[in-house]
Amino acid sequence: MVDKDVLPACPVETTLTLIGSRWKVLVVRELLGGTMRFGELRSAIGGVSQKVLTANLREMEADGLLTRRVYAEVPPRVEYTLTDLGRSLEPVLDAMATWGKRYKELVARA
Amino acid sequence: MVDKDVLPACPVETTLTLIGSRWKVLVVRELLGGTMRFGELRSAIGGVSQKVLTANLREMEADGLLTRRVYAEVPPRVEYTLTDLGRSLEPVLDAMATWGKRYKELVARA
Repeated sequence: MVDKDVLPACPVETTLTLIGSRWKVLVVRELLGGTMRFGELRSAIGGVSQKVLTANLREMEADGLLTRRVYAEVPPRVEYTLTDLGRSLEPVLDAMATWGKRYKELVARA
Repeated sequence: MVDKDVLPACPVETTLTLIGSRWKVLVVRELLGGTMRFGELRSAIGGVSQKVLTANLREMEADGLLTRRVYAEVPPRVEYTLTDLGRSLEPVLDAMATWGKRYKELVARA
């Protein structure tokens, strides 16, 4: 979890601190459907480098949004799962999806 | 409005395309309270340079999220107002505020 002394006073800014990057939002979108392996996540999101995705996943793990499980196989299997806290972001994603859908309809009509 | 050919298929990504920057979300937060002048907006948001805020506001105007009105005064007065489309982002901000508030409560208890 983020240290409470570094969290902004505004709750909207708090949420931006935790999932303010495009990649983090897309990681949540994917993992709401269930546990995924690193490679699956990366191809589902698209356009993200291994390095950047790894950095985002580490931050999300440190912030308590997801758990990372490594299986001692060759090659090692690494799986990511949202925590209850991470899953509780679903209404934020739902609101974004609803708005994005409406915007696309407006643009299609314009 | 954004050209429909450049919008991602996923509605969540569409929303990220439109308000994917921290500053844009905070501009919406402020303007949901009503019309504001550039200087008021900049100090209410905090930590953003004039150049970066201007660039974000121009994009939001081009995307149909807000209108900019210039009054022929000395010095010129410039005011920003959300369009209906911009105001329709309120449920997204509300969901972010609800989640951020809960996260802060969890962190405070931890």
